[in-house]
Parts: sequence; structure tokens; C-alpha cells
Amino acid sequence: MLNRADNDFLTRSSKDTPMGELLRRFWMPALLSEELPERDGPPRKVKILGEDLLTFRDTNGRVGVVQPHCPHRGANLFHGRNEECGLRCAYHGWKFDVDGNCVDLPAAPPGSAHKDTVKLLSYPAREWADIIWIYMGPSEHVPELPQLEMGLVPASHRYVSKKWQDCNWVQSLEGAIDTAHFSFLHAVLTKDEREALAIYSRSAALGDQSRPDDRVRWVRNDPRPKFAILGHDAGLVIGGARRTDGPDLYWRIAQFLMPNHAYAPVAFPGEVYYGQTWLPVSDTDCWIYTYSWRPDRPFTDAERAQFDNGFGVHSQVDDNYMPVRNIRNDYLIDRTVQKTTSFTGILGVSEQDAAIQDSQGPIQDRTREHLGPTDLGIVEFRKMIMSAARALQRGEAPKAVSGKRYAVRSGGWVAAPDRDLAAVMTERFGHPHGYVGHEHGLGD
Amino acid sequence: MLNRADNDFLTRSSKDTPMGELLRRFWMPALLSEELPERDGPPRKVKILGEDLLTFRDTNGRVGVVQPHCPHRGANLFHGRNEECGLRCAYHGWKFDVDGNCVDLPAAPPGSAHKDTVKLLSYPAREWADIIWIYMGPSEHVPELPQLEMGLVPASHRYVSKKWQDCNWVQSLEGAIDTAHFSFLHAVLTKDEREALAIYSRSAALGDQSRPDDRVRWVRNDPRPKFAILGHDAGLVIGGARRTDGPDLYWRIAQFLMPNHAYAPVAFPGEVYYGQTWLPVSDTDCWIYTYSWRPDRPFTDAERAQFDNGFGVHSQVDDNYMPVRNIRNDYLIDRTVQKTTSFTGILGVSEQDAAIQDSQGPIQDRTREHLGPTDLGIVEFRKMIMSAARALQRGEAPKAVSGKRYAVRSGGWVAAPDRDLAAVMTERFGHPHGYVGHEHGLGD
Amino acid sequence: MLNRADNDFLTRSSKDTPMGELLRRFWMPALLSEELPERDGPPRKVKILGEDLLTFRDTNGRVGVVQPHCPHRGANLFHGRNEECGLRCAYHGWKFDVDGNCVDLPAAPPGSAHKDTVKLLSYPAREWADIIWIYMGPSEHVPELPQLEMGLVPASHRYVSKKWQDCNWVQSLEGAIDTAHFSFLHAVLTKDEREALAIYSRSAALGDQSRPDDRVRWVRNDPRPKFAILGHDAGLVIGGARRTDGPDLYWRIAQFLMPNHAYAPVAFPGEVYYGQTWLPVSDTDCWIYTYSWRPDRPFTDAERAQFDNGFGVHSQVDDNYMPVRNIRNDYLIDRTVQKTTSFTGILGVSEQDAAIQDSQGPIQDRTREHLGPTDLGIVEFRKMIMSAARALQRGEAPKAVSGKRYAVRSGGWVAAPDRDLAAVMTERFGHPHGYVGHEHGLGD
Repeated sequence: MLNRADNDFLTRSSKDTPMGELLRRFWMPALLSEELPERDGPPRKVKILGEDLLTFRDTNGRVGVVQPHCPHRGANLFHGRNEECGLRCAYHGWKFDVDGNCVDLPAAPPGSAHKDTVKLLSYPAREWADIIWIYMGPSEHVPELPQLEMGLVPASHRYVSKKWQDCNWVQSLEGAIDTAHFSFLHAVLTKDEREALAIYSRSAALGDQSRPDDRVRWVRNDPRPKFAILGHDAGLVIGGARRTDGPDLYWRIAQFLMPNHAYAPVAFPGEVYYGQTWLPVSDTDCWIYTYSWRPDRPFTDAERAQFDNGFGVHSQVDDNYMPVRNIRNDYLIDRTVQKTTSFTGILGVSEQDAAIQDSQGPIQDRTREHLGPTDLGIVEFRKMIMSAARALQRGEAPKAVSGKRYAVRSGGWVAAPDRDLAAVMTERFGHPHGYVGHEHGLGD
Repeated sequence: MLNRADNDFLTRSSKDTPMGELLRRFWMPALLSEELPERDGPPRKVKILGEDLLTFRDTNGRVGVVQPHCPHRGANLFHGRNEECGLRCAYHGWKFDVDGNCVDLPAAPPGSAHKDTVKLLSYPAREWADIIWIYMGPSEHVPELPQLEMGLVPASHRYVSKKWQDCNWVQSLEGAIDTAHFSFLHAVLTKDEREALAIYSRSAALGDQSRPDDRVRWVRNDPRPKFAILGHDAGLVIGGARRTDGPDLYWRIAQFLMPNHAYAPVAFPGEVYYGQTWLPVSDTDCWIYTYSWRPDRPFTDAERAQFDNGFGVHSQVDDNYMPVRNIRNDYLIDRTVQKTTSFTGILGVSEQDAAIQDSQGPIQDRTREHLGPTDLGIVEFRKMIMSAARALQRGEAPKAVSGKRYAVRSGGWVAAPDRDLAAVMTERFGHPHGYVGHEHGLGD
Repeated sequence: MLNRADNDFLTRSSKDTPMGELLRRFWMPALLSEELPERDGPPRKVKILGEDLLTFRDTNGRVGVVQPHCPHRGANLFHGRNEECGLRCAYHGWKFDVDGNCVDLPAAPPGSAHKDTVKLLSYPAREWADIIWIYMGPSEHVPELPQLEMGLVPASHRYVSKKWQDCNWVQSLEGAIDTAHFSFLHAVLTKDEREALAIYSRSAALGDQSRPDDRVRWVRNDPRPKFAILGHDAGLVIGGARRTDGPDLYWRIAQFLMPNHAYAPVAFPGEVYYGQTWLPVSDTDCWIYTYSWRPDRPFTDAERAQFDNGFGVHSQVDDNYMPVRNIRNDYLIDRTVQKTTSFTGILGVSEQDAAIQDSQGPIQDRTREHLGPTDLGIVEFRKMIMSAARALQRGEAPKAVSGKRYAVRSGGWVAAPDRDLAAVMTERFGHPHGYVGHEHGLGD
């Protein structure tokens, strides 16, 4: 439970808010690369952390992310011409490059100094792992790009999507690191394991579909996983252990990575890894970038088609990345299915998550919540991000974390009952924090 | 005319407003019974007096009206599972019964005291007369259900509907007790009495359609009824007397019943009685529950079909109880019909009322009105309800009115010119306040 | 660049704002005459300078513009009956004439003085030049109607239209007197003069389509016209001179007329004249009345059909005067056309203007603009209108300008390089301010 002030502190991220300042010290996903497919193509509007921005890809393929209004008379450069390495305003022809420099001022007298003094606000942008990332903080503090493993594997080994969500980003991220809810929200009702498998496979994150029945059953049967947390430079390892059929424990281990990434807890060795990154649009909606990757091999066309259709944590979306099942159509809930087959009557793990997270309200009111032992990951996440924001308020910049510290994995494992989380992580990943950077030449 | 402060006082009913506190001392209609048809069926969202609530019918048929957000993490129980005498949250399985008690907490350790301390806000609900009523006030002050006669007759003898209205509830109720406007708003233009009858019958509240012509004419010919008011424990008798063809007076007598009911002034003996109850949703919209009843016999299927189609004070509505003719389509006004046939060009008495009431604005600005002698009923209504709200502000609870005091009728009568309202009521109903409780075994 | 306070001062025009007070000292276009086609026809809602009003044409053809709510109970007279020289409220029959006098009070006792004391707010209205004008200022200061030349020519010689625009009126008017943007916003890309002509003729204001190629080329080739301004009693002459193929200068000369009119700078002798008048609806939208006229001859049916379809400064609109290409559909921008054919990819001069003006924001933020020499007309316009509003704040009414001072023209001319603006105007129109009132019997 938070008091009103802390709830605002945690969830508000427009300019000049403490959390907004903190987020602006990190790289944010602004667009999928595929959203700016063409050099000199149409510019595209985006809204990020409450700021209206304009993006374009120039003649050389570079991406610009700029304030949209021309400094001359305030016309929106969205109507501008993207040509010859710059965006030219449709009103009077002023032209700016991807860095916001004024490169042509046709109405100014030759020799005018205006061109050198006029500047369009521009944020640094980098294209990496099929995503366009931008940095909106002070220029003397640009951090390294987070070396998420999905960007370290060949493009053929990853799949990246995005979806819109109609609520504050924090409660959505909290849903992702809360692995206790799998016993309910994503549960299937049927006792027929084969049917459960078919249904669950439609909506779950399983790479190997031949024998996930044990895990489905273990998750359903134990609604009280024991939680353990390990902090590291880039975030938190969040483990939840459930009973199995014998003395061993079934661990589902997620990762939170500062400040807005979370990794799913499902993958056994040889299965698909999933992660998500949140981009606050305003305080009451966000984009969720979702990625799957396999360190071991490329995805097949069939697997990609399955993802396209909304498999696993990926959502089924329309051409504008809006989920087909969303708050405006009650997620196409089917109350008969809810009675007979699935816990929610809503199709898709991603859609089940969206429904329950949106339902917490545009911004969850945490002054009325009652947290318990299974919410430990959420508590630790809040501590970590709020104390970083408070430190920044005091003038202490976020630790300059090496980008490679983000090269971690998360997933599932069955371990002897006496192993602690660090031991389980080491068994599963060879490292207590799941670090795999060395496999990609990043050293230890 | 009211000053700004009094207009606000009269019309605002969210929590912590004086009028809101007063209304919360009475039973409010929350839903039609038919809106929760099924045990363990889907929960339904409602908004009442500005509060978002959730309703559900449990395994035993009991209805719960609860705060919609789960105390655990704030997920909306709308997505929950209605099963085995309780509503179970879809996020982590917390479960609550119709009284808001926590009956299952699967994620809490066995023996945890949490279950006994966690409580979901719940309002008492009763099902009576095809309506689900709720009480939102202090638990030590629950009043008796108002014994409206439509609830005392067999179900076969009543017909209940509801409709949405896009304005503050007070101006709508004021329209219902203002019987002067029948000479205009609901008037027909044609001089052909048979045609007038046909049109008027489509839209009027007449049981006997063989000779209402006199009344239509009397109402049209006398736009200045003389008003008289009689107060009683449960409300006001509001009589308006018009000239007839001879020396007698044609009385149309409505009832206002505290705090949000009104009865129509039309029924002659042997005709259908009509009443309405207002439910403020927010301060700028409301539900209107409308009921017809006959003490003497069941409604026929043909009569019910007529009501279904928007006869009399009932509105023609869609599956969501939204009027087919509403503010968003200008009530399908036909300006040619307005020139030639009906005063408004709008079809239906209910729709004519809605149009003119909505047109007063989301909340009527009473600082600019000019009331006259024919507005006496409205003036007395405001006095009664505002003084009750002021008394409650001073700590004086509303009088504990016996529910049976609501067992009254209203209607029309033709009386000698020397009779006062009490005498006319006694002639017409056998009692100066129209009390008929003794006919239903409620005593005197 | 303006500071925040001045930007508000310039752009806000609701009641009790300084600019609102200034505008209320002038006649405002409320409707096209064609919008109230019928005597005793349906009343029509309008919103002007933030005020909701109701208009109707009475039995004698007179137009009333009144406050919409009946003084009795606040019902909207929109539902009223327009009959026998007055509008009768549908609720209780109160009736008002076009001057707001109460002419019938059926519910009041005979002899009641109420009728003489009740008054409906009404603004004086005049019908002139196919437009209904209203005056919303103090009754002791009613000015003369501005004698715009389009109203002085026979009806056959003019064409009047209107269109909705989704931004503050000031930035839209500023776009109209900014003739520098023709080198960009309305430019065509093709080098083929014949194709340019065809495209440009679709969208430009040219009467003689046989050889405008020179002008198109001159405008395209010189993006830095030299500006000169001449003030006069009714407004400003705003000239911009561009290079031609020889030593002469090509002048494009607009007019701003107080407080909300602008004339286009294109017409050579024998061509069509264009003007526009802005009507603020709220501070973030407006109606633009657009008119073409020929002093010399009637428009042909073919020319009128061309205007109907959105030729020149006229927009292609639907039955509600909403532009077919508007902010909600991104003006049907075609990015391929923008690459190959026209500077914007948007069809129509009027639509290109709307797109760029809307894009400046609901109210342009002038605190961030950077004006230059080609923005001189805009600077002088702001000085003139803001100083008039400040004078009115000090109690100095706007100069009582004779209506005939609005009888001016604007247009284009090719002049020797040594001529100043007054000389060019005299060469082109016979008068340094373009005055032509004497041609219409208004004297000098």
C-alpha cells in the first residue's frame, strides 16, 4: 500500500516529475524500425512520456526524433517534406536535419545569421534490435544502450512486436513481474490435460509443446509460490517456487531491469525467452514492446506466423498495433468460456493481462491495496525504482550501469528443495543473475 | 428562481453533498431484476449517485452490490468469476460474498488472519417489484422499503421499464409533477377529435380509449390550471383544476413521493396508473424507472406489447435501455409534423418530456427562471426536499416514514367547482392523500 | 514572438476578454442567408464568440438571433414553434419575437404585467450580401455595416461560401495576409509549365487561365518577397514584391480590414477578387466566410459549379459546411503526390491553408515563433488589432469608421522597380488604398 503522494510519485512521468526525470536518464523505445520503413518517407507522430514528437528517416537512413513545431511560425513539420537529408516545413520551407540543425532558410536574406541560431529540439536516436530508441535526458549523461539479449542474437533469432495498453505503465509492469497470478488469471479449468495443453499452448509461452502438462498442473495446484529476490546492478531476479509432484520445487524466475523492462519466468532450457519494455505515452496509456528470442536457432516461418497471430505474450493487433481484444470491446470476453474452459473467458495471455491491468483503473489507486507475501517482487520493484528517483531528486544520477549488465536471461527450473535462489539461478543459467554476456563476446 | 448556491444544493448528489446524503437515506433502484437474470451469471457494472459499483446474483439468487475493485491489487471484479456463492477476482482468486465478506484467500498462508480483516464495501440490496433496490446510507438508519402500489399488486398487474436520460434528475422530476405543460408540450394541433385521439393515444396514458376526447379538449383549452397542494408524511398531492364544458372542474392530480418518485395525474377510475422513480447516475444523467399498474386486473399480452413499444410514459428503448429517440439524434424531430400535427414534432409523451428536459441543460440554471402560479407544485417540491436536506445537515434524520405511507394513488376526476383538493381526493380515492394501503392489507 | 499574456490577449474572444470586447464592436457573420431559407422554418443553433445562440426567420422574413433558453423554465427554444411572427416555447407556450419581446404568455393570468417585464436577450441582425450579420456590442455603439465590395455588386456578380476550421481564428487570418507562403505551401513541383498550370488552376485564384504561368514561376522562384505596408482607416494594405524575368517587380497585395477580414493578393485586372471573414466559434475553432466577386460581370453557371466543388480559396464542403478534407482525415494527404507533384500532397489551396493553420495547434503558441522580414504583414496586423483592443480597455471606443472605407480591392500588378507601394496601388486601382466606393455611388 502506498500513500497518495507516493502513488503519484511512482506513476507520473511527464516532464519535471521525479519519475519522469529518472526515465529520461534511460533509452526509451520510440518506434519499431518497421514503422519508419522508408528513407525520405512520411514522418510519423509519436507521444512519449507526455511529449508530442515527430520522427522521420532521412535520405541516408538516419532517424530523427524532433519537436514537431517549426520554430518559424509553429506549423507542424508532420506536413513537411522529407527530402535531401532533412525535413522541410510545408509553410515557408525552413529545413532541419535529424539533429535539429537548420540546414535551409529560404526566406531569410543571404548571409543572415538566423540559420545558425535557430535550432529544432532533437533527441538522440539509435536503431538497435528492430527498435528505434531515444534518449530524452541531459546530453552529458547519455548511457549505454541496454544489451538485452534479444538484440545480441542474430535478427533471425528474435521476434519483436508492440501493443497499445489503456493504463499506466507501472501497474502493467507490476503484472509482468507478478508470477503468482499464473495460478489464476491464465489458468484453464478443464481437467483434461490434453485439452488444457491445446488451450494453454494457444496462449502460453512454451517452446516445447510436447510435455508442458506438468508445469500447468503445478502452477494450478499451488497458488502460494514462495518468493525470493536477488538484486543486481541492472535490476532484480524475482523467483517464485511452487510444489511439484515430489520433493523438488518448480521455480519460475522473472527479471526486472531498470527502469522499464521485465522478462518472463517460463522458459526451460531449449524454449523461447520473452521480455517486455514499457513506454509511457501519457500517465494513463502506454506502448508495450514485446520480444521473443532463441539463443540457439532462428525462428521458423511457422513460428513467426504464430506470433503474428498473438501467440504467447504477443498480442493480436491491428495495423496500428491496437489489440483486437481491448477495453473498448471488453476484450471480447465470453462468459460461457469463462464458466467452462478458461479462468477469464478472454482469449490470449497478453489479452488476459491487458484486461486485468486496465481494470485496475487508468492509474491504479495503491492507497487501497492489501499486499501479501506473494507480492514481494512488486514491493522490491517499487523500492528500487522509487529510491533511484529520490536519489536523482537529491542530485545523485542513476548508477552508470554498463549496458552489458542487461545481458541476462530468466526462466523456469526444477530444483532440490534446499537450494536458494542464487543456487537455482546458477544451476539454470550458470550465473546467479542469469548473466549470459560472455556468450555474446561481452566478457564477464 | 434559486440562487446559484441553492441550485447546486438541489441538484448535486455525489457523496458528501447535502442532497447526496439525503438521497442515501432512502432505497434507490439500482437495476431491473431482468438485468441480473441468472444465478452465477455475469456481474454488471452500475453507477449510482456518482459511485461506480458492481452487481451480481449469486448461486442462491441473492444480489450483491459492491465496490468493484478487489482490495488486494485493485483489479476490477467485473472480470471475476461468479461462482459458489461469491465473486472471485480473476487476478489472484480472492473471493467475496454478496455482503462483501472475504470467503476465500487462496494466496494467503493457511491460518492467516487476513481473510477476516479484509472486507469489500457492500450495500444492502433487496429485490421487490421487479426492481433491485439498494441502500447506501448509514447501516443504523435503514428505512422500510416504500410500499409503492405497483409492488403490492400481483406481478401480472404491473409493467416496469427504464430509460436513460441525459440531464440532471431534478429537472426531469420537476417536469413530471408539472401538469401545466400538458396543454402545450403534449398537445395535438389537429381539430379533428378522432385523429387527435389516435395520435394522443399513441403517446398518452389513457386506459379507456373510447372517450378521452373530452379530456384532451379540456387540457388544450385551458392552459392555466388552478393549482392546490396537500402535504402528507410521504410527499405531496399536487392538483391542477381546468375548466370543462360546464361548471364542473377537471382535476389532474399528481403525487410527489420523497425523495425521487412521482405519479402521473391522468387515470380515471378503471384506467392505468403510472409512476416514475429517478436514479441519479451522475449529476448530469439519470435512469428513470417507469411503472404502470392496474389494481383491478392483469395486463394483457397486447397491452404489454404496446408498452414495450413505448406507449404512454414508457419510452421506446434499445437493448441497453437507451431511448431510440434521444439527444444525439434530436429525438428524430419532424418539423413538418410539428407544423401540422403535434406541438413538438416528436413522437411519444416520454420522448417529448425527455427532449424538453434535456434542453434545459445538463443541469438547469434556475438562477434565470421566472416561475408563476402554474409552477406551484415545483416550488413546494423544492421546499420539501431542500428543507429535509438542510435538516439532515443539522443532524436531523429524515422522519422515519412507514413504508406503507407510499401506498397511494393519483389520477384525474371531474368535480363540482366548490370542492377543495382534499374533498376531490376523497371523492376520487376515498382518502384525502389517496391512501389505498388498506386494500392491500396494510391497515389504515 | 509574443509573450504568453499577449498571445492570450490576441487570441481569446469570449465575453469579458479584451479582444472579445473589441470584436463585439463590429458586425459578425452569423450565418449564410441560405441557412435560414424558410419563413417560419426550423430555428437553427449557432455558437458565436463562445456564446450559444438561436436563430430563426419569422413570418415576415425577419431574422432573430436570441439567447436560446426560455426565461420561464430554461427550456431550449430550439424545440419551439416558429409561427406567427415569433418563436413559441414547446414547454408552456411562452412566445418571443425577433427582438426578444415576449408577445404571448398563455399561462399567465389575463392582465398580468409579467409579459412586459420578461425579455429574451436578442442581438440586432441584418441580412446583407447573402450573409446574416449580427452585432453583439453595446446598443449605443452600433456601427455601419462594412461595405465590402462583394456586397455592393449585384448578387449575380458574387459567390459566397463558408467552411469550418479547427483552430483559433487569428492564426488562420494571419495565414491569409501572409503572402510569402505561396512560394512553398501552394507550390507545384513539376517543371512542366502546362501541367503546373492545370494543377495550379484547380487550386488557385486565377480568372484568366490563359497565361498565369509567369506568375506561378515568379512566385516559385522568389521565396523572399520585399514587404511594404500602408495603413488606412479600415485596415492595412500589405504588399509583397517579387522579382520577374526582367527589372520589373511582381507585386502581390493583400488587404487586412478591421477586425476580421482579409483580401487575397492575386487578381490582375479582369480577374476574380477573393475575400474572407473569420467568425470565432470558440477560441479553438472558427467559421471562415469566403467570397469571390467580379465588378465587371456575373459569374457563369460553370464558374459557380467550379466554386461549389472547391475552386480557389473556396473549400469543398459537405452539407454542414464541413470540409471534406480536414484534420480528422489528415486532409487526405497523398505522400506520393507530395513527392512528385505538389508541395503538400493535399488537394486545394483552401485545404492546404487549413492543414498548415490547424497544425499550428488549437491556439498557436507565439512564444516560440521566430518572425523575419517576410512576416511584416503579420506584425503590423497584430499591432493594429491589439492596440485597438487596449484602447478599448482604456475606454476608447474603436474609431467610428465609415462603412464605405471597406469598399476596397486588393490584387496583383507588375510595376517598375522604383515605385513604392502607394504608387503601385494607384497604378493598379486608381487609389493608394484601393478604394473603389465611388464606382458604387458611395462618393470619395
